Amino acid sequence: MAQSTAPAAIGDSEFDRDTSVRARAGEPGTYDAELSEGWTIVSAINGGYLLAVAARALREELPHPDPLTITAHYLTSAQPGPAVVRTQTARAGRSMSTGQASVFQYDEHGDEVERLRVLTAYGDLDALTDEVRTSARPPEMPGYDACVGTESAPENAPFVGSTAIMDRLDVRLDPATAGWAIGAPSGVGAIRGWLGLADGRDHDPLSLLLAVDALPPTAFDLGLKGWTPTLELTVHVRCRPAPGPVRISLTTRNLAGGLLEEDAEVWDSADRLVAQSRQLARAPRG
Amino acid sequence: MAQSTAPAAIGDSEFDRDTSVRARAGEPGTYDAELSEGWTIVSAINGGYLLAVAARALREELPHPDPLTITAHYLTSAQPGPAVVRTQTARAGRSMSTGQASVFQYDEHGDEVERLRVLTAYGDLDALTDEVRTSARPPEMPGYDACVGTESAPENAPFVGSTAIMDRLDVRLDPATAGWAIGAPSGVGAIRGWLGLADGRDHDPLSLLLAVDALPPTAFDLGLKGWTPTLELTVHVRCRPAPGPVRISLTTRNLAGGLLEEDAEVWDSADRLVAQSRQLARAPRG
Repeated sequence: MAQSTAPAAIGDSEFDRDTSVRARAGEPGTYDAELSEGWTIVSAINGGYLLAVAARALREELPHPDPLTITAHYLTSAQPGPAVVRTQTARAGRSMSTGQASVFQYDEHGDEVERLRVLTAYGDLDALTDEVRTSARPPEMPGYDACVGTESAPENAPFVGSTAIMDRLDVRLDPATAGWAIGAPSGVGAIRGWLGLADGRDHDPLSLLLAVDALPPTAFDLGLKGWTPTLELTVHVRCRPAPGPVRISLTTRNLAGGLLEEDAEVWDSADRLVAQSRQLARAPRG
Repeated sequence: MAQSTAPAAIGDSEFDRDTSVRARAGEPGTYDAELSEGWTIVSAINGGYLLAVAARALREELPHPDPLTITAHYLTSAQPGPAVVRTQTARAGRSMSTGQASVFQYDEHGDEVERLRVLTAYGDLDALTDEVRTSARPPEMPGYDACVGTESAPENAPFVGSTAIMDRLDVRLDPATAGWAIGAPSGVGAIRGWLGLADGRDHDPLSLLLAVDALPPTAFDLGLKGWTPTLELTVHVRCRPAPGPVRISLTTRNLAGGLLEEDAEVWDSADRLVAQSRQLARAPRG
């Protein structure tokens, strides 16, 4: 197999390079990052990618490796370019630690502008018991090969094809939830799909933070068009994911007062529920 | 009607008095509070009540009145007695503001110990549009009079009767989810019930923060006994509740690695979904 076609490894991939952070000398808890234009939607940095950058800085800072629960508030729209992550440890316990982080970029005067504020508890997923007792079942959806990639979307479909992030992701949608791309949304408020990384890197807890916010929004399946800006996103990472693409099920039940919740479940190749998330977003006006 | 039997009003009730905060002179953003032993479970302060105290300080501090989404991380166990809430405004926008707060108590040396850290977005529920488009339905459960109050629980039932908070609440459980009180849990992981405040005060957005954490834990319905400490709780308040007790549906689907999620939906007397919440908790060992 040629080197160029070998799948990228966790720790040596586009996602890892583009979420890397460097400790700033003389400023404890402060990390410099470069937000990559490879993870933009139209011209804005994807929210899940931005969260992963903050989570990587927190992994450096906190004594535990994995985000067990992480909440992000999106304050202003992030752009490709330099950023700084300032972290703080709230409490460091034996099996779990609590921290917070803010991601800043710079305005035209060089002043810091806050993009994202994060509050989180980290632990060690490998130290948890193997006990599983669940009534949750994987989403009913076709296999990877029977789902549709973005290469088969019509050119005028919203988002698809117009955004850099699609080159970094391997997205395959359940055809039953892809009708919006040809003007026939189901109206249910559901999006299901497979998600891998385009360079073949397997998922880890950090890429799951990207995964919950990487599919097209449920608003499209409700027949709405336009931007669905996330106000707040909370992700629970429940298990280290097994190799291979994950299945993601997004659902929205309640659109009210111009706001909607979007719930995500992420399932791995071993049929384990590896992440659950909910976000509160502003509904598109369309 | 005698004065003593008139229902308490929002703003003049046990809940309002016990969550009140006083701005500390000369320290902007800092509020003193007194955590009341009336809201304890065994000897610990209830997590929803503690969150409501923080939310009241944030209401004083932020330019908008209502928590739209609020996340709490529980760091150490709070006790009745003095507390201080330190708030910070992250961003104040036109229709929404983002803030954070920490609740501290004092150790035996008088040093501050952090109990709770909160990250939140506030807005004005009355300023949202009346638009509702929902596929969510109220829980199927008996009416208030057909549900069972704590006065009918056996003396040795876990929690019930042993905790001060039960005197402040009017809890009526769906008999189908109350079997654990007589040693016959359903195993499903569901708790449903009606919740009012004992003095007749109607609900408002702050008391909904209490409501999502006030019923017995779903772990009891799974047949587990003991403490289910909340690590993190996120509440979305979607609508100002109509008068009267609310219906609450709690569900747990995934207990894994010693952790479980507990989802709450809160419905008002007008059949509107007024709050959604999810918490990550440590499962009891029992």
